[in-house]
Amino acid sequence: VGSLVGVLLAATSGVALAPAAPARQSISELLAGASPADWRPLDPNNTLYLELASGRVVIELAPQFAPLHVANIRTLAAAHYFDGLAIVRVQDNYVVQWADPDGRRPVPPTVTKVAAEFDSAIPAHLPFTPLPDGDVYAPRVGFSDGFPVALDTRHDRMWLLHCYGMVGVGRDDDAESSGTELYAVIGHAPRHLDRNVALVGRVVSGIEHLSSLPRGSDAMGFYAKSETPVPIRALELAADVPTAQRSDLEVLRTDSKLFEDVIEARRNRPEEWFRTKAGRIDVCNVPIPVRAHPSAPTAPTP
Amino acid sequence: VGSLVGVLLAATSGVALAPAAPARQSISELLAGASPADWRPLDPNNTLYLELASGRVVIELAPQFAPLHVANIRTLAAAHYFDGLAIVRVQDNYVVQWADPDGRRPVPPTVTKVAAEFDSAIPAHLPFTPLPDGDVYAPRVGFSDGFPVALDTRHDRMWLLHCYGMVGVGRDDDAESSGTELYAVIGHAPRHLDRNVALVGRVVSGIEHLSSLPRGSDAMGFYAKSETPVPIRALELAADVPTAQRSDLEVLRTDSKLFEDVIEARRNRPEEWFRTKAGRIDVCNVPIPVRAHPSAPTAPTP
Repeated sequence: VGSLVGVLLAATSGVALAPAAPARQSISELLAGASPADWRPLDPNNTLYLELASGRVVIELAPQFAPLHVANIRTLAAAHYFDGLAIVRVQDNYVVQWADPDGRRPVPPTVTKVAAEFDSAIPAHLPFTPLPDGDVYAPRVGFSDGFPVALDTRHDRMWLLHCYGMVGVGRDDDAESSGTELYAVIGHAPRHLDRNVALVGRVVSGIEHLSSLPRGSDAMGFYAKSETPVPIRALELAADVPTAQRSDLEVLRTDSKLFEDVIEARRNRPEEWFRTKAGRIDVCNVPIPVRAHPSAPTAPTP
Repeated sequence: VGSLVGVLLAATSGVALAPAAPARQSISELLAGASPADWRPLDPNNTLYLELASGRVVIELAPQFAPLHVANIRTLAAAHYFDGLAIVRVQDNYVVQWADPDGRRPVPPTVTKVAAEFDSAIPAHLPFTPLPDGDVYAPRVGFSDGFPVALDTRHDRMWLLHCYGMVGVGRDDDAESSGTELYAVIGHAPRHLDRNVALVGRVVSGIEHLSSLPRGSDAMGFYAKSETPVPIRALELAADVPTAQRSDLEVLRTDSKLFEDVIEARRNRPEEWFRTKAGRIDVCNVPIPVRAHPSAPTAPTP
């Protein structure tokens, strides 16, 4: 039985290359040749573990883009606010959302609605790897510290993008929100949400525990009364979890030369299976590689 | 508990409108005002039912784009080739694929590998609703007969796009394929597959029966030996199913004025919840509305 995407081959591209030029490599080949400095470990103070019966979802937080909401989420996690609450909404090709289904859980007094963090001014020294392929929605897109981001230099604004796996803060009609309701994108990038919600992070591992959940049958994918919301065992900051219980993950540095090579290997796939090279790539189609730290023991099942 | 997307409101946009201009409506409001002529019924000879234990997946075929493969698929369906076979691959944020896991099912003798149908010449009278918003991958995109499509008029080529829900033909390293292995897109549009496989249709109903399946743990999301492939009860052409058992669905005509209004209502969401209007829309973010025929009885559970 053939597969949709063929076995990865060490094929050179069809374009004639100067003798000194390296053969084009697939992403797995590129990553196999990475040096340790190409990777950065997740910071336990910027990492959330969403624990479900099926396994752990690891979320890297982005305080550099939404400091007020990330501070609230850290407080909520430390207070075990989400533990025992539930996934309340699974809308196909859109989002999974978790919150207090009954609205009875007391919120820590220091967690209040904070100002909208839909976008922000561009700092003087923003790490930024531009993607020159263009974008339907934003004047300029690329990557900063492991996150997909748009820049509007004319108006001095930057914002995170609603790509697959991004995590945001649900809100009602007020622009302000607190962080007691969170969602992850599980479908085609809903970029119309950009600059309409505070994005606070990205799922770096375990998204399948969210994306394969049964869809809710009420409007907008909310679970109906007859359906059982999926319980949340815990939502914790990695720093609050014993070291031996942590997921020791590393993310490819998006300011590395290797990451640019990864992008090119996706833009023009070197594998023999591909008959037409795309030549371009959508920012939300760029994978941001994640791996277990090479010396890490197999992470225990939580 | 607030929701990510607010209740649909009959709000006008924030832009001052000339008195005669109609207030902008949300998509559900627009569709509520549709006339019967805005909708077209699915042609039973162009409609597949993929029957799973959890329910029916309805696929509209696109013989105008891949006539050879669609002919093969019709033959396979008539021979009940897929009945009792299985979903063999579920790769997160990518595809669900079904085929013969053991490779033992006899293939009807008239079904052989046919020429690649990755793209085709543009016919003289192609129904085409252009999307002027631009595209990262193709010179021109839009909609034809209910399908997302790209045009390259300079080279006289057109091709279907790998948007969410599109159905294609798995192949090995040969460009030719037969149609005994099919897949549906369940993630962010993998547009790098455009012009690398024959797309043959689109899921118009029931995609959640595919997208919520457990992900396979082998490479590329294939189910491992220890995992149970999801059985296919039947894959049939609607024309071969008794009328009372059919799903009586209608698709919004993509050459209608109403469809252009739907696109605009997604490009600049009129709902009060939205603080930033996107102003643009990605072709794979345009919904192609589907409804049960108003006079249809509730479709029986197959």
